[in-house]
Amino acid sequence: MRREKDVGTMNILIKNGTILTMSEKGIIRQGAVVIEDDKIVDIGKTEDLERKYGRGYEKIDASGKVVMPGLINTHQHAAMSLLRGYADDLPLQEWLENRIWPIEKCMTPHHIYVGALLTAVESIIGGTTTVNTMYHYTRGENEAKAFSDVGLRGIIGHVCFSWRKREDKLLLEELAGKWHNKRDGLIRVSVDPHSPYTVDPEYFIELKEIGRDLNRKYGSQEAPIIWHIHVAETFDEVEKIQAAFKVRLKDGIFEYLDSLKFLDEYVIAAHCVAITEKDIEIIRKRDVKVSHNPVSNLKLASGISPVPKLVSKDVTVSLGTDSSCSNNTADMFEVMKIAALLHKGVNRNPTVLSAGQILKMATIKGAKALMWDEEIGSIEPNKKADVIILNFRKPHLFPLYSEESHLVYAAKSSDVETVLINGKIVMENGKLTTVDVDKVLEMVEKAKEDLIERVKSNLK
Amino acid sequence: MRREKDVGTMNILIKNGTILTMSEKGIIRQGAVVIEDDKIVDIGKTEDLERKYGRGYEKIDASGKVVMPGLINTHQHAAMSLLRGYADDLPLQEWLENRIWPIEKCMTPHHIYVGALLTAVESIIGGTTTVNTMYHYTRGENEAKAFSDVGLRGIIGHVCFSWRKREDKLLLEELAGKWHNKRDGLIRVSVDPHSPYTVDPEYFIELKEIGRDLNRKYGSQEAPIIWHIHVAETFDEVEKIQAAFKVRLKDGIFEYLDSLKFLDEYVIAAHCVAITEKDIEIIRKRDVKVSHNPVSNLKLASGISPVPKLVSKDVTVSLGTDSSCSNNTADMFEVMKIAALLHKGVNRNPTVLSAGQILKMATIKGAKALMWDEEIGSIEPNKKADVIILNFRKPHLFPLYSEESHLVYAAKSSDVETVLINGKIVMENGKLTTVDVDKVLEMVEKAKEDLIERVKSNLK
Repeated sequence: MRREKDVGTMNILIKNGTILTMSEKGIIRQGAVVIEDDKIVDIGKTEDLERKYGRGYEKIDASGKVVMPGLINTHQHAAMSLLRGYADDLPLQEWLENRIWPIEKCMTPHHIYVGALLTAVESIIGGTTTVNTMYHYTRGENEAKAFSDVGLRGIIGHVCFSWRKREDKLLLEELAGKWHNKRDGLIRVSVDPHSPYTVDPEYFIELKEIGRDLNRKYGSQEAPIIWHIHVAETFDEVEKIQAAFKVRLKDGIFEYLDSLKFLDEYVIAAHCVAITEKDIEIIRKRDVKVSHNPVSNLKLASGISPVPKLVSKDVTVSLGTDSSCSNNTADMFEVMKIAALLHKGVNRNPTVLSAGQILKMATIKGAKALMWDEEIGSIEPNKKADVIILNFRKPHLFPLYSEESHLVYAAKSSDVETVLINGKIVMENGKLTTVDVDKVLEMVEKAKEDLIERVKSNLK
Repeated sequence: MRREKDVGTMNILIKNGTILTMSEKGIIRQGAVVIEDDKIVDIGKTEDLERKYGRGYEKIDASGKVVMPGLINTHQHAAMSLLRGYADDLPLQEWLENRIWPIEKCMTPHHIYVGALLTAVESIIGGTTTVNTMYHYTRGENEAKAFSDVGLRGIIGHVCFSWRKREDKLLLEELAGKWHNKRDGLIRVSVDPHSPYTVDPEYFIELKEIGRDLNRKYGSQEAPIIWHIHVAETFDEVEKIQAAFKVRLKDGIFEYLDSLKFLDEYVIAAHCVAITEKDIEIIRKRDVKVSHNPVSNLKLASGISPVPKLVSKDVTVSLGTDSSCSNNTADMFEVMKIAALLHKGVNRNPTVLSAGQILKMATIKGAKALMWDEEIGSIEPNKKADVIILNFRKPHLFPLYSEESHLVYAAKSSDVETVLINGKIVMENGKLTTVDVDKVLEMVEKAKEDLIERVKSNLK
C-alpha cells in the first residue's frame, strides 16, 4: 500500500481555536498554532500570530473547535486488529489457547501488515497520533511499514520469548537497523521481553544488553530504543514465573526484575494490575513507566491496577488500549473516560483522577512514558507538530462549561476532525490524506477470509 | 420549537440489511423490515418481502448495515443536560449541595424544556428511541413537550418529595391528563417518588394510590402509568432513611418498601447499588424492574450494582445513562460497553454479561422494565417501528466476525445513521428531520447564559 498522496510538509497556521497546550501555558482562547515543516514554531493569541505569520501559511480555521496534542497510546499489538471480535466473553485460557493462539499462528507478514494498517487508520481517525506496539517483527511486510505508510508515529517492538532467542536477536538487529529514527523520525524501535513468565532470567539480562548495544549503534540520548514489557497483568503471575523458571520470588515481580538489573527509566511496563506496595516502591525508585489499560483489564477480567496510588507516588502512568482482541477498539477517548470513571468507582472517591489528570496521562505523560517528551505530548514551540482538532459543535458537547471535562467525560473519538502528525495533515475534516480507507478495508476483508481459511485447514 | 417538517407516516421497506431482531428469530441476513404507518408489519428475507411489498413503499437500502431495535434508556433526568460538565470530580455532597442544587433552583420551565430538547436530540442521534425521564414536571414548557417536538418516545415522570405533597398531586394529575398515551402514543407518564430517604412512609402509600387512580382515569392494561424511583444508590441510604423518618429498617430498603405495599411489577428502581441478598429476593418476588446506571455510579463513586447476581435470579435488569451531570452523555452504546466490561472486571470472570445479554438489557429488557414490551424492544410484526440503522463500513468495525460483539465492544453511537420512531424517520443519514439541531444548540447556549446569570444574582 502506498500513500495515495504524499502530502508535502508546508507552513500551517491554525487559528481561532481553543488551544489546550498541555503545558504550563494551559488553555489559550482565540488561540493560534504556527507550524513550519514538522515543527511547532509559535503559539499564542490569533490576533498576534496572524499579524506576525500572515503570509505563506496555509490557514486552518478552528473557530468553535478545540486544538490539542494528539493522544498517545502506550500499549498496543497493532496487527491483532485483524482478530477484532473473533472471540469474546470466554475464560482467559480458553480464549488464548483455543481461539487466539491457533489463529495467530496462521498469520503471515502480510496479515501483520494489514492488521497494523487497520489499527493505524483507526488510531488517526480517533485522534491518536503515537502508538507503542508490541508484536512479532517480520521481514518484508510488518507493522513499521504499515505505520509509516499511514503516517502514524509509533514505537515498533519485537516481542521476545525464551524459546526463540536466536531468531529474536536477528530480528531485533534488523528492526533497529532498518527502522529506528530514520528519515522523518516517525518510527522508533523497542526491545520487548514478552513477560516475566515467558522470558527466563538469563534472557532478561541478555535482552537488556542487546537493547544497550542497539542503542549504541542506532539510538541516541534524544531518540533512545526503549524496553516494552507486560508485567503483573494477572494475579497468578508470580506463581507462573516460579513454576516456569524454578525461581523463588520474595517480594513481588518488580523486585525480581530489579535483581536482574532490568529496570530503569527506559522500561515501560504494561498493565501492573497485580502489584504490591513493594512493587510500587521499586517502580518509583527505578522510574519505570506504567501503561494502564483499563478496558482490556476489565474485559479479560484480569483485575484493576492501583492507578491512584501509583499517581500519588509520582509514577509516570500513561494510557493504552491494548489490542483490538481485548478492547475491541483503538479508541483512546474511551480509555480516558473509563479510566476516569473506574478508579472513582472502585475507590469510592469521586475526586480521584480528575479530567485534567486523565488528559495528561493521555498526552504528556504518554510522551514521558515513551521517553519521547522532548518532541511530543504537548503543544509547545520546538516540539513536533502532532496536533488534533475536535469539532465541539455537537449536541453531546453542549453547553460548554469546561473543555477538559468535555474531553474526558463527553467527547468521542468521532468528534476528531483534523489530525496533523509531524506537521503533515494526515486527516482533514474526517478524511485521511495518506491512504484510501476503502482500499484498506478491502485488504482487511481479504486478509480475514484468507486467515480463516488457513486456520480451518490447520485445524483439520 | 416546532418540528421543522412534520414528517408524515408512510410505508417503508428497509432491505438488504443484517436484522438483529432481538426476538426468537435472532439475526436475519439479507433481511428486510416492512413498516406501515407506525407499525412493523412483516420481517424476513429481502428477496421474499421485496416481491410481496414491492410497490408503494419507500425503500431504505441497508446493504452492509445493521438494523436493530432502538435502544431504551431507562433512567434519565433529561432537563439536566443543561448542566453537562458544570461540576465534576467533586465529593458527592459538595457537588450536590454547593453546585447542582443551587443552579437547579434557578431553572425555569423554559430551561427544563431546552435541556430536555437537547437530551432528546442527543438520544436520537445516538440511536436511543425511548427515554424514561424523572424531573420536575412544569406547566407550560416541559420535558413532555420537548420529547414530543423531537419525536422521541418516552416516559415523563414527575418527581415527588415529602415537602411538596400538595403541589405534587396537582402536577401529577395535570401531567397524566395532558400527556399519558395521547394521540400517537409516543409519550407515557410515571409517578416518581424521588427516593426512600426523601419520601416519607405515608407519602409512599399515598403515591401508590395516586398512581392507581391515575391509571383508572388515564391508563390501561396496554399502556399503564408506572412508578419510577431511585433506590439504594449509595451505601448510606439505610441510615438516611432511618434518620429522616424515625423508622427502623430490619433487613434492607426493599423489605421496608414492600412493607408499605409499594412494590410490584409496575415499579422501576434505578441504581440498586447497595442491596442485600434479602433485597434481591424481594425484587425478584415482586418482579420489580431494575435500571442499571454504571457510568453514573462510577463517576459519583456510589459503588457497583451486583448485576450478574440480579440477572442470575431472572430479575429484569435494563440500562440507563442517568443525567448528563453524572455521565456526562446520553450515550447508550457507551453504557452497554461499560456495563459489559465492569462486571467482568470486578467479578474476575470474563464470561459474565455476554454481548448478547447486554444487547437484551438495552432493548427488550428495557421495554419490559417500562412495561412497554408489547409495543417496543424488538423488531417483530405488530410492534411499533422503533428501528435504528448502523453503518458498519468503518475501520473500527472491521473485520466482522460477530455483529453482537461489535455492537457492544466496538460500535459507537456515532455509527448510527438512520433512526425511525413510531414509523417515522426522525434521523436520516445523520440528519434530524424533526428539529433544526443548530437552532436547538443556539437555544441551549442562550438558556445556559441565562441560567448562569440567575445563579450568580441568586448567590449575591
